[in-house]
Amino acid sequence: MITLEQVRALDAADPLRACRERFALPEGLVYLDGNSLGALPRAAVERQRQVVEREWGRDLIRSWNSHDWIGAPQRVGAKIAPLIGAKPHEVIVADSVSVNLFKLITAAAALSPKRPLLLSEPGNFHTDLHVASGATELVPNLRLETVERGRIEEALGPDTNLLLLTHVHYKTGERFDMARVTARAKDSGALTLWDLSHSVGAVPLQLNRDGAELAVGCGYKYLNGGPGAPAFLYVAEHLQERLMPVLRGWMGHAAPFAFTDEYVPAPGIARFLAGTPPMLSLLALESGVESFEGVDMETAWAKSTALFDLFAALVEQRCAGHGLDCVSPRDPGARGSHISYRHPHAFEICQALIEAEVIGDFRAPDVVRFGLTPLYLGYEDIWTAIDRLVDILESGRWREPRFAVRGKVT
Amino acid sequence: MITLEQVRALDAADPLRACRERFALPEGLVYLDGNSLGALPRAAVERQRQVVEREWGRDLIRSWNSHDWIGAPQRVGAKIAPLIGAKPHEVIVADSVSVNLFKLITAAAALSPKRPLLLSEPGNFHTDLHVASGATELVPNLRLETVERGRIEEALGPDTNLLLLTHVHYKTGERFDMARVTARAKDSGALTLWDLSHSVGAVPLQLNRDGAELAVGCGYKYLNGGPGAPAFLYVAEHLQERLMPVLRGWMGHAAPFAFTDEYVPAPGIARFLAGTPPMLSLLALESGVESFEGVDMETAWAKSTALFDLFAALVEQRCAGHGLDCVSPRDPGARGSHISYRHPHAFEICQALIEAEVIGDFRAPDVVRFGLTPLYLGYEDIWTAIDRLVDILESGRWREPRFAVRGKVT
Repeated sequence: MITLEQVRALDAADPLRACRERFALPEGLVYLDGNSLGALPRAAVERQRQVVEREWGRDLIRSWNSHDWIGAPQRVGAKIAPLIGAKPHEVIVADSVSVNLFKLITAAAALSPKRPLLLSEPGNFHTDLHVASGATELVPNLRLETVERGRIEEALGPDTNLLLLTHVHYKTGERFDMARVTARAKDSGALTLWDLSHSVGAVPLQLNRDGAELAVGCGYKYLNGGPGAPAFLYVAEHLQERLMPVLRGWMGHAAPFAFTDEYVPAPGIARFLAGTPPMLSLLALESGVESFEGVDMETAWAKSTALFDLFAALVEQRCAGHGLDCVSPRDPGARGSHISYRHPHAFEICQALIEAEVIGDFRAPDVVRFGLTPLYLGYEDIWTAIDRLVDILESGRWREPRFAVRGKVT
Repeated sequence: MITLEQVRALDAADPLRACRERFALPEGLVYLDGNSLGALPRAAVERQRQVVEREWGRDLIRSWNSHDWIGAPQRVGAKIAPLIGAKPHEVIVADSVSVNLFKLITAAAALSPKRPLLLSEPGNFHTDLHVASGATELVPNLRLETVERGRIEEALGPDTNLLLLTHVHYKTGERFDMARVTARAKDSGALTLWDLSHSVGAVPLQLNRDGAELAVGCGYKYLNGGPGAPAFLYVAEHLQERLMPVLRGWMGHAAPFAFTDEYVPAPGIARFLAGTPPMLSLLALESGVESFEGVDMETAWAKSTALFDLFAALVEQRCAGHGLDCVSPRDPGARGSHISYRHPHAFEICQALIEAEVIGDFRAPDVVRFGLTPLYLGYEDIWTAIDRLVDILESGRWREPRFAVRGKVT
């Protein structure tokens, strides 16, 4: 039996314990939804105030030069690069995950127009599939097929243009072996586009080492970039000059301020910019990425796995018989940084937990999901969360009708 | 000869004079670049602080429901609608102008695949042409032709799919007759897509009355939404259900939180959302749009034309012989809300003005441009700007080498 004393000892020995002070978390709240919206870095409060009052209000248009707004997409991209094992000039911040997926899917399709198959898996995060199906309506011959993950490698063939996968599954937390899958796709002549939304800032990533050529990722989850923070996009160095963006705009032009009618792509990763970036959101993302300063991702991952194991063990120990079925892999190498349970009343349990100041989230139709963010969660937070969960399950309080009321976002 | 007393009398009689207090403008600065980056609304300072500290920091993920983040794209769109003469449910805030152009160009192409011609004009704002040329690389048979504005109406024909025009030209300020051009295009069976970036918040717009069916516009210019604020998109009610977005994502799905593999477009304008919107930037735009509260656009436009006429008259009166050639139309009905001059040393003059705290901007190769924003400019600001311009021209100070140094953004 795990005791509170043991849990406190884990906190006392936690090399990342001090990182929690980097975040402004409400007292008493156990926030297990950093995989949906990361917590507010304290540094972002003052930084946003400066951006609004000084950069926008006082320096106005001059800030594009004097505060290097114009360089922000590359600068923040370069700060994300070490978190994903990429070179600084292989990453750029732009638009949303959806829009970046579209840019890379259509550019990849144009690169190999005789390979018509866009391959993905059913149950992939749905925006990835929506973007993919939209691209197939536009690009002649391009077709989307989804095959179960166990059959993906055999589905790869000479007609495969692109394999589109989310590295860590948003619901179950299952993780692909990036090196292996990328290599198999490459063997068949296909590119792989990795959606890192549930990996970046949580799972150790080595895109260069693992041979990844294309990726996108989310700024507002583990990167703590704020609600709807812009996304990022990665293109391996050797591919950058070979890919021509078809969704493009002036910010990706070789000379944006020459105002020429003809599109000439900027050299390198900058060609994947389109319109003017949302600067307030982009600079909040910079604060979010900076909240990882000095944090080794292997250390963060070791803590993530320990938080997961503690969560799982406490549920087994204290919630047995209440029908919670863990759908996340127990093998750390096969999972991300959240733990999910299936339950026929996952929605109501999730709502009751929120009322008890334990924030997880519900994912339709029957999953309650808890994000484990090593930068600002302690082991005792997990203990507290389970304490409150046990109370909700044992009292049956989740059956009260108010917990069945749905908001717009659920 | 216009005198300072006359100018002050204009300020005293200005019905919009009090609006200046809505903005945090630096003392002594004459800001004539609100058509590139609108000034900071005072209300945005406190609002952003609340959004960051309370909505993001304290309420975290719950804010999607409790602060209606999820409804923000429609809510802010509905607030823009009266400024452009549209119905509230015809406007939505999303992405950038470039990305929204791409959405509408590709959706229009899919609507009438047998009409292959995408028509625009040379010298249109370049991102519009880059987006258009990108779309033609993707959509089978779609081709882009640019014809001089005097020949556009005769170029319209049975093969025209879409006419893509910027309502007010970013450089010269020339304005199209929206009702007439839209009607001509409609006669030929074509849709018209209006880029309102240099119109919205400055020029009176009546999209419904003028028969406009598609439009996009910029949030960070006259709407004062902050650097890189998200853009908006307008689709006339009768077209909304007929247009299927091909660049799409989960936020435009009929049931985003059902997480289904199949894309089902949301009813109405919401289908034109793609990824998660950048909330900090989007909510700053809301403050920007609210800075127009109680302002009648006809009153604003009357002041804009008076500011323009004063500017032009003072340049004629006091800068004659210095080679400034006004390229903006003198007929108010044929122009927007900025005044532009051609000069072989426009760049240096612009830089010298910036040093003298008169902020306009340079547009390659030889134009200096001054934005006239009726909400926060007074007539005496124009007097002061011309005073400083006269000093720079008469002293020849603009010839000093430091004014020839280019930043990244110029």
